Amino acid sequence: MTDWFSEHRPLLDKALDACARRYSWSGWPENPSTKIHGEEKPAAGRADFEAMLANEFVLSQPGACGWVGEEVSPYTGQALGVRYEQLDPAALFAAIAEGRPAWAAATPQQRVGVCLEMLHRCGEQLFANAHATMHTSGQSYVMAFAGSGANALDRGLEALAYAYKAMADVPATARWERSFGGDGAACLDKHYRLVPRGVSVVICCATFPLWNTYPALCASLATGNPVVLKPHPAATLPVAMVARVCREVLAEAGFDPNLVTLAADSREVPLALALVEHPDTAIIDFTGSPRFGSYLEQNFSGKQVYTETAGCNSVVLESTDDLAATARAIAHSLCQASAQMCTSVQNIHVPADGVRVGGERVSLTEVQGAICEAVDGWLAEPRRSATLCGTLFDPSVSQNVARYRELAGDRILRDSAPLHYAEFPDARTASPLVIAATNSDRELYRKEVFGPVSFIIANDSAEQCLADATANARECGAITSHVYSVDEAFIDAAVEAYHGAGASVAVNLHGMPINFAAAYSDYHVTGLNPAGNACLADLAFVTSRFRIVQSKVMRR
Amino acid sequence: MTDWFSEHRPLLDKALDACARRYSWSGWPENPSTKIHGEEKPAAGRADFEAMLANEFVLSQPGACGWVGEEVSPYTGQALGVRYEQLDPAALFAAIAEGRPAWAAATPQQRVGVCLEMLHRCGEQLFANAHATMHTSGQSYVMAFAGSGANALDRGLEALAYAYKAMADVPATARWERSFGGDGAACLDKHYRLVPRGVSVVICCATFPLWNTYPALCASLATGNPVVLKPHPAATLPVAMVARVCREVLAEAGFDPNLVTLAADSREVPLALALVEHPDTAIIDFTGSPRFGSYLEQNFSGKQVYTETAGCNSVVLESTDDLAATARAIAHSLCQASAQMCTSVQNIHVPADGVRVGGERVSLTEVQGAICEAVDGWLAEPRRSATLCGTLFDPSVSQNVARYRELAGDRILRDSAPLHYAEFPDARTASPLVIAATNSDRELYRKEVFGPVSFIIANDSAEQCLADATANARECGAITSHVYSVDEAFIDAAVEAYHGAGASVAVNLHGMPINFAAAYSDYHVTGLNPAGNACLADLAFVTSRFRIVQSKVMRR
Repeated sequence: MTDWFSEHRPLLDKALDACARRYSWSGWPENPSTKIHGEEKPAAGRADFEAMLANEFVLSQPGACGWVGEEVSPYTGQALGVRYEQLDPAALFAAIAEGRPAWAAATPQQRVGVCLEMLHRCGEQLFANAHATMHTSGQSYVMAFAGSGANALDRGLEALAYAYKAMADVPATARWERSFGGDGAACLDKHYRLVPRGVSVVICCATFPLWNTYPALCASLATGNPVVLKPHPAATLPVAMVARVCREVLAEAGFDPNLVTLAADSREVPLALALVEHPDTAIIDFTGSPRFGSYLEQNFSGKQVYTETAGCNSVVLESTDDLAATARAIAHSLCQASAQMCTSVQNIHVPADGVRVGGERVSLTEVQGAICEAVDGWLAEPRRSATLCGTLFDPSVSQNVARYRELAGDRILRDSAPLHYAEFPDARTASPLVIAATNSDRELYRKEVFGPVSFIIANDSAEQCLADATANARECGAITSHVYSVDEAFIDAAVEAYHGAGASVAVNLHGMPINFAAAYSDYHVTGLNPAGNACLADLAFVTSRFRIVQSKVMRR
Repeated sequence: MTDWFSEHRPLLDKALDACARRYSWSGWPENPSTKIHGEEKPAAGRADFEAMLANEFVLSQPGACGWVGEEVSPYTGQALGVRYEQLDPAALFAAIAEGRPAWAAATPQQRVGVCLEMLHRCGEQLFANAHATMHTSGQSYVMAFAGSGANALDRGLEALAYAYKAMADVPATARWERSFGGDGAACLDKHYRLVPRGVSVVICCATFPLWNTYPALCASLATGNPVVLKPHPAATLPVAMVARVCREVLAEAGFDPNLVTLAADSREVPLALALVEHPDTAIIDFTGSPRFGSYLEQNFSGKQVYTETAGCNSVVLESTDDLAATARAIAHSLCQASAQMCTSVQNIHVPADGVRVGGERVSLTEVQGAICEAVDGWLAEPRRSATLCGTLFDPSVSQNVARYRELAGDRILRDSAPLHYAEFPDARTASPLVIAATNSDRELYRKEVFGPVSFIIANDSAEQCLADATANARECGAITSHVYSVDEAFIDAAVEAYHGAGASVAVNLHGMPINFAAAYSDYHVTGLNPAGNACLADLAFVTSRFRIVQSKVMRR
């Protein structure tokens, strides 16, 4: 077996250092430009993707009893025609059981080495993966290459680094000697063995199919647990490509490829419950709706459950030195990936009597105008607009936008309209819908509205903005929260209020995509509010995925 | 505030090193002998204990609404007469809430320093604690000084070291800089804050009131969570003494003493459920019966639950070079603390056709005889017998022995009888009852029989011994397991079989108390079988007791 652990050790060490010091670093390229990669690789990736279309995606998995596949490109409206093996859970779990002992018996180094090689090879297919992500989750090509490529792989490597650190905390052996007074003396050789929990089921989401998948995969697999990947029916291909790589690497390393499987399903015959309820399943990683996430959190007390769901992410805008720049920063979040990111802003809280800008008070109306104008600014240039917004992954998102247009009535500050992409005339799109709201619309904005729908909420005062936003974070969940203020006292109060609500907070982010969550640096999801119970990544994400048994033998 | 962290830093560092390399070390003296401590300290400890008798144990806690106390010394049969504050849970939790913010805001170093000082001061009251433990849990004075003193404090320090390590893994701040191509550049100052979960309820057991209490207390308190200690009604005093120390230290450090409280209750009006069900309770540590432990594990999915319960600990005796020594080692476990330890052996599996001893086959009958003789050997000298066996903590243990004497009928290999202690003529005692069993008695031995009752189980072969013992470990739980064999292949198979059953295993332990579980070295409880879900101590015991929130602020 190739010594992948030694080969990739520098990458692992760099990730461990980045996690410890939490600076900016990435193990993979974020930019798909041919200026960096040349013409050949991007073209080959596209060709790889196209070759998969209208074809069976053969993984030769156990328990295959048919084909399933219903992906439709949000860019073309056409079915991808990729068919995945439909698996019988009983046969699947029976087959998985066979490979478990050898994988459990492998050393942490061996397993981490295998995971590092998996990530490395997934890094080699980023171009094909970008096309697959684009035509399933609806992301733009650039976003799919970065967000579902480098950024997602970084999250995986980060989780792997934590798994390695947690396992390295347990020594393999120890010598133990002492006397027991009158009762005697002892010299014991002790051996400590890490024992995986059981099968790990990873339920992936549609809009960022790999961002949470790589971390869950690496955390579970490195600690010895077989992984079943359950992709969203709308975004199976990116996950299937990862499963293929994993199975190849496992086989090359002499392990059972069924230690990683792909359990594709359809909306009509969903598999998730059958997988998580199976007695062999000990670990559940879930990314998706708060409803199913909370069901999993509450009903599987014997299993390890890690969730990232959603909340109503907020901005509190108290004051700024540069309203245009602040509006641009916020508007970027309303546009990026058509606000289908877990970090997209939804609720923008503004004092009803306006905002202080460089000492002057600017009215609520002007602030509303500045934000809507900034949205228009981001959309002005069609190429940039396409890259920034991408498409709506599913018709239900279009329906969401339509429903809120109706609910908003005359309170629409900025209407949503289709975006036109020259290359994809049939793309499913919608520009940001911005709605004026007050406290009496709490029913509307106190939940995640999935897609490009946001509210500019007029609260009575800056303090009320903060009170409303943080109450919503506490009660309805929040993954990101933003404060804009030039008042140090207000900033301090806001940080305390958000932290008190179990939420992290970003202050005065300008001139960068404010949705960006950085692997190795940003602890993503606090686990302290309803938007999920697990963090990417910390020690708690990995330490319970294995247990420790020991033997102690008396020396003769 | 005194810098207790710096003051006790050498002790913490030593504990961290011992955890990492897992050698034998203890931070406190195990031997109460006046040869070591002089005459004064032991006498003062005894006087302290006696002064507490027939008195109110005043902690001046909030919500006090009466007095409760029903401890009876197993040595004298007399009520201790110590009365503890009976608390109203609603008032208690309301008061606890007041001190939480300041404790959460303290640095990990401050909190760990406070915990180190608590352990240090508990170490100063070990003599008084030994008497309190003796006259509640029924341990002998020597055992109470060591097992409930040094060994328990070591477990606490061990858990504290893990808590420190887990918190130290999260840096307080970071600088993060990068460019975003066309989208701009960013320089962010990040602050990471540890957020405690909530109130931590520690339910202590009667027979080793502090062994699991110090670890849970330290793990929760160091990570910022207030702790409510819920002692067993039969063994409240040792826990109350710890609570008093903790409250004093907290107050001296300028924190709210109600961050550690003692919620004493009675058998008639138990408090445990009201405490764990309270919405402020986020963490539950439990030591006690498998039934209540499993109820807690299954019904509190929103809370962190850590349990240590019980199983049916086994010995598999395949072969030995020295039958007398092996019998002595096993018999020691049957006698020690009258087999009321979580590490006491209950089921001794012996092949029906006997055991190989130095090449010769020795019959089952001879093996039975050797073990019973070894028990008699340990009991021959009254002083040693008293030190080794102590008393039965509760009349229910006597009833257990009586019931199994009846059930055993003519299969009693060694009958139980009262032990006579010159100093305590009324002590509640019972020498080990040893029962001959076969596979058809599975109903009898496949559960914990609390107290000095054990079974020598004749299985068809050594392999069947192992199969029976490991099936019981898997299905009914095991905290310790022992194998005696001179056959390397059998030892290897036994280690694999026990590990496969989720159990740790000790091989050929002779000439030492085989019940001994060493802090910093033995991972106690695997969490892989029904005898509990938590380990003393590993990273998983501490990492989920806090979460992380962050703020990131853009530099101007």
